[in-house]
Amino acid sequence: MNKKTNLIDILNKLKRMPQIVTPKDASLILGYTGVSPYSHIVDAGSGSGFLCIFLAYYCNKGKVVTYEKRHDFAEVARNNVKSSGLKNIWIKEKDILEGIEEKNVDLITLDMKNAEEVVKNAFQVLKPDGWLVVYSPYIEQVIDVRNEIENFSFTEKKTVENIVREWRVGRHTLPEVSGVMHTGWLTLARKF
Amino acid sequence: MNKKTNLIDILNKLKRMPQIVTPKDASLILGYTGVSPYSHIVDAGSGSGFLCIFLAYYCNKGKVVTYEKRHDFAEVARNNVKSSGLKNIWIKEKDILEGIEEKNVDLITLDMKNAEEVVKNAFQVLKPDGWLVVYSPYIEQVIDVRNEIENFSFTEKKTVENIVREWRVGRHTLPEVSGVMHTGWLTLARKF
Amino acid sequence: MNKKTNLIDILNKLKRMPQIVTPKDASLILGYTGVSPYSHIVDAGSGSGFLCIFLAYYCNKGKVVTYEKRHDFAEVARNNVKSSGLKNIWIKEKDILEGIEEKNVDLITLDMKNAEEVVKNAFQVLKPDGWLVVYSPYIEQVIDVRNEIENFSFTEKKTVENIVREWRVGRHTLPEVSGVMHTGWLTLARKF
Amino acid sequence: MNKKTNLIDILNKLKRMPQIVTPKDASLILGYTGVSPYSHIVDAGSGSGFLCIFLAYYCNKGKVVTYEKRHDFAEVARNNVKSSGLKNIWIKEKDILEGIEEKNVDLITLDMKNAEEVVKNAFQVLKPDGWLVVYSPYIEQVIDVRNEIENFSFTEKKTVENIVREWRVGRHTLPEVSGVMHTGWLTLARKF
Repeated sequence: MNKKTNLIDILNKLKRMPQIVTPKDASLILGYTGVSPYSHIVDAGSGSGFLCIFLAYYCNKGKVVTYEKRHDFAEVARNNVKSSGLKNIWIKEKDILEGIEEKNVDLITLDMKNAEEVVKNAFQVLKPDGWLVVYSPYIEQVIDVRNEIENFSFTEKKTVENIVREWRVGRHTLPEVSGVMHTGWLTLARKF
Repeated sequence: MNKKTNLIDILNKLKRMPQIVTPKDASLILGYTGVSPYSHIVDAGSGSGFLCIFLAYYCNKGKVVTYEKRHDFAEVARNNVKSSGLKNIWIKEKDILEGIEEKNVDLITLDMKNAEEVVKNAFQVLKPDGWLVVYSPYIEQVIDVRNEIENFSFTEKKTVENIVREWRVGRHTLPEVSGVMHTGWLTLARKF
Repeated sequence: MNKKTNLIDILNKLKRMPQIVTPKDASLILGYTGVSPYSHIVDAGSGSGFLCIFLAYYCNKGKVVTYEKRHDFAEVARNNVKSSGLKNIWIKEKDILEGIEEKNVDLITLDMKNAEEVVKNAFQVLKPDGWLVVYSPYIEQVIDVRNEIENFSFTEKKTVENIVREWRVGRHTLPEVSGVMHTGWLTLARKF
Repeated sequence: MNKKTNLIDILNKLKRMPQIVTPKDASLILGYTGVSPYSHIVDAGSGSGFLCIFLAYYCNKGKVVTYEKRHDFAEVARNNVKSSGLKNIWIKEKDILEGIEEKNVDLITLDMKNAEEVVKNAFQVLKPDGWLVVYSPYIEQVIDVRNEIENFSFTEKKTVENIVREWRVGRHTLPEVSGVMHTGWLTLARKF
């Protein structure tokens, strides 16, 4: 695709697996970390690649390295990245629990089980003022991650949930009667 | 500031007036429109300039023209834009109700009273597939805008509210007991 | 049924039509008005009778008169009231817009179109300190009712929406991923 | 006070301590359990007595026994119950962890630390079809209680949070900009 192609139009053409990080949550990562378009980003696990594509699209002068240990997921992510036309994404078919090879990272995003086990390595490879963001569908994961974050010199620690309520507007105006009540929590922390 | 400076660090240094578009709402504009970093954007009214700075920061290969009819607000916006270090923002001290001078626009964002009166001109200057986004603190404004949008060939029409709930996590885990319940609605529509 | 039968068990056996006032909203009427078990209550329209049964159940030493202008709905309500076993409900197959025959009323509940046209008569037949409660699925109805309420000596005016989010708790704890985002607004006002 | 006095007027005159069960949560207990006005209810801990007064007011043909181990709280509760004029409340200055002396109970409400330690005894003294309701400010408490509930023959298990959003209605209509985002979770379970 053309580099000026709209991101939503790109995403709508990709293969979608369950439990992608939704645009509302992906965009909040930009809104709350303020990472620059020149950022070096590390992401794990890739899943279908939606989050790394989202970040690489807006951090177009930077690059995103994304780790995925499952071969089948990495294949989907590779195809989706190829379809996206973005040139600043590298997929590593590896378990990030075995180590992070990058240095001086501006942002690390984790959407994976046992994310708390990555916190220590994440802290080490982050630049000062760099951000760690963890996406957790379950509150137990949030608690584990926040507990682990307490062991390192992070600041600006914050956990949020983001609820978007769609409205029907017209002759009768009201919130949609049913909809998505929950996707996941975002936990943010910044290296001091 | 350096072009790699984090956006949050930039915003925190700016002069802040009441009723800015918050990062959660500004970032949702990216998340839901998917406008590219190469976008030409028109914004009104500038207010303190937070929204146009947010958009210009991530649309760093594009440009943002922002209209502000009040001299005092335009002054604040000019100073804030200058402090931000961003070079791709133009402030016009004009009332956008008198006309939009730009053409082939990818995104128009409106955070102003009587936004419904801008819809017609917005439709005309938008590119096909370009987005109109209106931020409305009051539901009456939402209804007026949606009614006017019905008069033109817009598609993907959507109105949302975005509630971010912060959580306290630790030995005791719970949502913050009190917090912001409402900022405004975002209405989105795409030129067919 | 026995007078000690649980209300939920009663309600579960009744014929249910769309758009009943749900238990979360019905119970909030008690919670926010604090009407006594000895209250004289007027209700309109009956619909399937769920709200009047709820109120009559807890206001067991008082009575509820419920107006329903549609014959088919009144039939459903009559059957449901009969099944409930409650003896303190009177169904009037009449349009409440034609007048309220009761006097010295403690609580008037309205779940009907054009509820704003009942406000004047409601004010007249309410006791001092009596409550008017209007259930409105649409915001336009809320606005119409609140505007009309301003014309009379009401106090403690309040409009609320009540969102109940169900949680999955276990090995993984999280809010239900999808659910009911909206039923209706409750507007409350108390005769001065 | 007179037995027809409005409950809100009663509650407004009582001494209020921090962290009372609010009317929105107290009324949801009625709405979701449907306990009859003839119910025998056990409550712990009394705190300032708001929940037991709420329940005793609407279960006016039944009775409420409330346990409070702290002498200072029991004193406040005693004074509040006396002021309420209700005759169907008994305060026991005891720790409910030491045992529940009542039998054939229709509803047990727990608003206390370590509520999970009461579940076993609660199950034993509940009638078949009787309800256990636990109010928990923290999610850890919710998890502990739900885990313990799994050890007994409970059915209709449910955990909810109840968010009431107040609206400003008038020339400009919008949700209140800030407000209460969280009080506590209600966990409900019914003896099989």
